[in-house]
Amino acid sequence: MQVKLAKHSGFCFGVKKAVEEASNVKGKANTFGPLIHNPQVVQELAKKGITKIDRLEDADASSIIIRTHGASDKLIHEISSKGYNIIDLTCPFVKKVQEYAKDLEKVGYRVVVIGEKDHPEVLAIADNLKNPFVVEKPEDVDGLVEDKIGVVVQTTQSVQNFAEIIKKLGKWSDVKVHNTICNATKERQESAAELAEKVDLMIVVGGKSSGNTKRLVELCSGIKETKHIETDDDLQREWFDGKNVVGVTAGASTPDWVIRRVVKRIENEF
Amino acid sequence: MQVKLAKHSGFCFGVKKAVEEASNVKGKANTFGPLIHNPQVVQELAKKGITKIDRLEDADASSIIIRTHGASDKLIHEISSKGYNIIDLTCPFVKKVQEYAKDLEKVGYRVVVIGEKDHPEVLAIADNLKNPFVVEKPEDVDGLVEDKIGVVVQTTQSVQNFAEIIKKLGKWSDVKVHNTICNATKERQESAAELAEKVDLMIVVGGKSSGNTKRLVELCSGIKETKHIETDDDLQREWFDGKNVVGVTAGASTPDWVIRRVVKRIENEF
Repeated sequence: MQVKLAKHSGFCFGVKKAVEEASNVKGKANTFGPLIHNPQVVQELAKKGITKIDRLEDADASSIIIRTHGASDKLIHEISSKGYNIIDLTCPFVKKVQEYAKDLEKVGYRVVVIGEKDHPEVLAIADNLKNPFVVEKPEDVDGLVEDKIGVVVQTTQSVQNFAEIIKKLGKWSDVKVHNTICNATKERQESAAELAEKVDLMIVVGGKSSGNTKRLVELCSGIKETKHIETDDDLQREWFDGKNVVGVTAGASTPDWVIRRVVKRIENEF
Repeated sequence: MQVKLAKHSGFCFGVKKAVEEASNVKGKANTFGPLIHNPQVVQELAKKGITKIDRLEDADASSIIIRTHGASDKLIHEISSKGYNIIDLTCPFVKKVQEYAKDLEKVGYRVVVIGEKDHPEVLAIADNLKNPFVVEKPEDVDGLVEDKIGVVVQTTQSVQNFAEIIKKLGKWSDVKVHNTICNATKERQESAAELAEKVDLMIVVGGKSSGNTKRLVELCSGIKETKHIETDDDLQREWFDGKNVVGVTAGASTPDWVIRRVVKRIENEF
């Protein structure tokens, strides 16, 4: 089977930096939540003594790593006040969103955070605010009563969904928008859509709870038949029946070695 | 013929105020351009000695009226420095747009003015700026290279066109939007669309060069067969063949007496 890989796919800057720095930590450390939304990487890190905790009470190391999605000021303060050493691997672009959101609130805007309500990046951004308003889809803005609206957006949001929400916010009289979708996200979405047009089937590789991977799946599904897998073991022979060319892309937290194995296996076995 | 009048139509606050104040001017005065975009009203004012000029050299009165669409600071300064008495009848909502635009430029935004390139309101707003960027339709934003964008919009713009342009501006990283479409415009557009759904034919009454009237015509044309007239004399018998109910709306610069004559004539003669 012929395989075409998307021009932009896999590890983004923030993930690459975080995985490298976490791998270089000497001794044991705990990450608060998974460092990135990729079980294979999290497993590799665990072998090196970098293990995930979900509550501070479960910490069994003196260093706590803040994951790429960030943490609220409140949580960071709590961790540090309990005497832990903090290794902050928050993606710098996520940090920027947190800063924008706080600044907007400071100057009197009701802050709208466009993103997944339960995603750790969005939770941390919102947790820094007195009165956040989280919006997942255009209809959600209907409940908004304030006239002065400041908008930030989850770094990995769908560009299309963001645009539709911004269009609806055109009804408000004073709107300040920081388009904080990161370049890596935009590039991956654009090149996935471009590739999906040219192939018979799209395979999106990435963690099942990875937001940006899910958005790639949604985007490609609107264009061509699309399958979401975490590793090459999830591939199913019947998907490839009658197909000639297969496109492969991957979320920003999917390591190269996982992508390479998927490409190799499709090329050789199907 | 049965006639239904749109819930909101005709003179808006700014026009009403300007026409009243112009009518109360003692003695002669010149308006710089037509006071409002309605030839019938302009003619009535001329009978009272309030006449239109297009260049300051043509002034034949000591008082110059600034029309509802406003004038640039530069022009006002020129008029006043030549010793004329200025009667400023700029719509207060238009004044607000001018202020927002200047403030945005002052704090480092490239100012995007959404509106008709040749409309006096837009020309005056833009003329106060060092580097304005006028946008009529979504494609126009493609040439914009700055990352920090401040948006204002002509008070009488189409809400739909504005929303489409704002959606496109979602690609920029830092966007500040003042939605300066006035309430009168929104109400007139909403009630025109509502009425067009319920009738067999729409008649829009208003000056041929009135921007807000043209937008009502465009809006209604997308919903039902629509005719644009200036006065009852423009009505044509064949438009009403096979129609049962006719909807009437009017631009913000169309006086009540013109609308009433249209309604009466349709009711009685067709």
